[in-house]
Amino acid sequence: VITFTTDFGTSDWFVGVMKGVALGIAPRARLVDITHDIRPGDVRGGAFALMAVCRYFPAGTVHVAVVDPGVGSQRRAIAVQTQHAFFVGPDNGVLSWALNREKVESIRQIENTTYFLKPLSRTFHGRDVFAPVAAHLQRGVSLKSLGRELHDYCRIPWPDPKVGPGQLRGEIVYVDRFGNGITNLEARPAAADSSARGEGRGIATRLDPRWLGKGAGTACVVTGRRKVHFTLAEFYAAVPPGEPVAVPGSSGFLELALNGGSAATQFGIEIGDEVIVS
Amino acid sequence: VITFTTDFGTSDWFVGVMKGVALGIAPRARLVDITHDIRPGDVRGGAFALMAVCRYFPAGTVHVAVVDPGVGSQRRAIAVQTQHAFFVGPDNGVLSWALNREKVESIRQIENTTYFLKPLSRTFHGRDVFAPVAAHLQRGVSLKSLGRELHDYCRIPWPDPKVGPGQLRGEIVYVDRFGNGITNLEARPAAADSSARGEGRGIATRLDPRWLGKGAGTACVVTGRRKVHFTLAEFYAAVPPGEPVAVPGSSGFLELALNGGSAATQFGIEIGDEVIVS
Amino acid sequence: VITFTTDFGTSDWFVGVMKGVALGIAPRARLVDITHDIRPGDVRGGAFALMAVCRYFPAGTVHVAVVDPGVGSQRRAIAVQTQHAFFVGPDNGVLSWALNREKVESIRQIENTTYFLKPLSRTFHGRDVFAPVAAHLQRGVSLKSLGRELHDYCRIPWPDPKVGPGQLRGEIVYVDRFGNGITNLEARPAAADSSARGEGRGIATRLDPRWLGKGAGTACVVTGRRKVHFTLAEFYAAVPPGEPVAVPGSSGFLELALNGGSAATQFGIEIGDEVIVS
Repeated sequence: VITFTTDFGTSDWFVGVMKGVALGIAPRARLVDITHDIRPGDVRGGAFALMAVCRYFPAGTVHVAVVDPGVGSQRRAIAVQTQHAFFVGPDNGVLSWALNREKVESIRQIENTTYFLKPLSRTFHGRDVFAPVAAHLQRGVSLKSLGRELHDYCRIPWPDPKVGPGQLRGEIVYVDRFGNGITNLEARPAAADSSARGEGRGIATRLDPRWLGKGAGTACVVTGRRKVHFTLAEFYAAVPPGEPVAVPGSSGFLELALNGGSAATQFGIEIGDEVIVS
Repeated sequence: VITFTTDFGTSDWFVGVMKGVALGIAPRARLVDITHDIRPGDVRGGAFALMAVCRYFPAGTVHVAVVDPGVGSQRRAIAVQTQHAFFVGPDNGVLSWALNREKVESIRQIENTTYFLKPLSRTFHGRDVFAPVAAHLQRGVSLKSLGRELHDYCRIPWPDPKVGPGQLRGEIVYVDRFGNGITNLEARPAAADSSARGEGRGIATRLDPRWLGKGAGTACVVTGRRKVHFTLAEFYAAVPPGEPVAVPGSSGFLELALNGGSAATQFGIEIGDEVIVS
Repeated sequence: VITFTTDFGTSDWFVGVMKGVALGIAPRARLVDITHDIRPGDVRGGAFALMAVCRYFPAGTVHVAVVDPGVGSQRRAIAVQTQHAFFVGPDNGVLSWALNREKVESIRQIENTTYFLKPLSRTFHGRDVFAPVAAHLQRGVSLKSLGRELHDYCRIPWPDPKVGPGQLRGEIVYVDRFGNGITNLEARPAAADSSARGEGRGIATRLDPRWLGKGAGTACVVTGRRKVHFTLAEFYAAVPPGEPVAVPGSSGFLELALNGGSAATQFGIEIGDEVIVS
């Protein structure tokens, strides 16, 4: 399996041509689109999407992420092997939130032009570098043949929540298509197995599951315009239609939603808005 | 083959992650997107899309439809086996228009957690329930192992057209990307084989094919704003550019169109508008 | 491999149903979307996308292009075999820019209904004609069994640039999702292998690679509103953020861009705007 996470959109041919290149090299690869609608140049959006999906793919999957405003400049390209998967992309942090949760085994700079498409453009490394390198990895080319070993990768700082007495302070890190505001506050359903693979970030920043249900707690988001209170609950329809609700979202974080509507549109929620749970 | 019809959009990772889960279970499954741009929560839109496509897929295809505003609440999840295919989704009617045209063999409640992803979220059953169950069905798991037998599924009422002397009264049930208003009036091209698999809904509500061509009949749509007359014809370009035309659409229903433009934009056509053919 | 380039959008089921039909005939075919967001009826947009991708796909790929405002009328449908690939679509020019760069071996009218879906609609030949014919070709059906031989295909005139002393005059032929204006002026990076397969259009209309870099030349676009100067360079980030830059684009043509922004939005660039390089 090779996955693609990009800001290329789907209105042009950019994604299709990457797949053509990949299938020319690895005819049996299964190609899966994560999304191509990351906002142009939004490296954090790409990092979040990749983090949200990579654990759900079979072992050995090659994940390609191309949100690459610096294409053609001196920014490095990297390939990373973890215990579970491979990651390929520009070394600008787009891979980092996913890698933070994986057991990294090897990091290589992508520089061996043997595995590139020629002629190499300076504006479309998705087609000329990342797609062919991913396809070669899928076919069994070793990571070390791609280039020199590196000891680290560029990291985008994860906004760590702050813990106070009976309170957690975090922020909105992603707004999805339903208008749900996803926070940086870890929250899992009561029944969740908290010992799942490599996901622990310290219990102190986790939402106490007892706060969910029976109106035992609320989340409050502070937008540029105002403060809004969300009832903590287990699922969207736990509150009446049109009511704000905060639920443990499917990506493992507390999500601020509107049952049957868009919290983002209704309340003007944006990335970076402060969220206080008490 | 496994197909996906959802309201998840393609700007986030929701569809990609469903595919990752499915490929982890059924590595050889062929995954096909029907559409992910059903309006959020529009169960009828999802039902229409699924009805329009399912007969065109190979026997044994597993169709997954997730338009599921009640996710996490007490709404049931069901899996249905028909003579031709499998259907998996919430029991809220999204499967019903497709099932009405199939020969149903067995209906089961999806409740055996053996086939779910764990931990089970309460906000994303597409990933945790429907994708893995579909993949297990594709691999040959029997329908009966999923849960208890049910005797019926939730049905969305199909708006039956009314037949008068020399007249049919129906309504707009779907507006497509070209701005064509699809009606609930069955209409097939003259040459069409009306004995095709399980499609009969009674000849009385069918459009008489003799009405098409040579201006023998017109369709009239009554929008909130006004009445518009459409010439009945066999294909869009049968009228001059910019002219309204009503044709037997590819989904088997009369379609109100504008040759070279959008009838929906031009005339304000909306779902539910009355259509009179005479 | 079968590729699809259409104006069907992805909000309805049109693309999904084409794939269902194709997989019913050719269960092992790999299906790749180029794009479905060609503007409705924009035959030139489809022609440009197909031209930009086809050389990157493996030998034997079947390319289906359906931008087909005349569907159901007397317009011909054609299938073309080139040294490298197959092309299937309406004979309205949508295939022509790709075919101009290929070595054409045989052109056939698609008329043998044996390979069509029945009943044949008059509004959706993508599903009923082009998808099944492509799938049969992929399975090895010979081109000549599809219908009578043709000696040419409908061509959309390519806007040839004009060469003056130390100057090239061209125009904008495509605007992509990043807001880059792609011109009809051929331009390749300095290192590019100019003898690549069949791509030569005469060196006189090529951009001199020495003009790139060190501010040795500029491109000037004349929009309806004003004249804008773009620095010629090798890649977007060669100029400061927010500055206009003209680079040899990945599709082989000079591209007018804004580093970190949308040149189309900023300067109102549209298809047909004149571009002067000196």
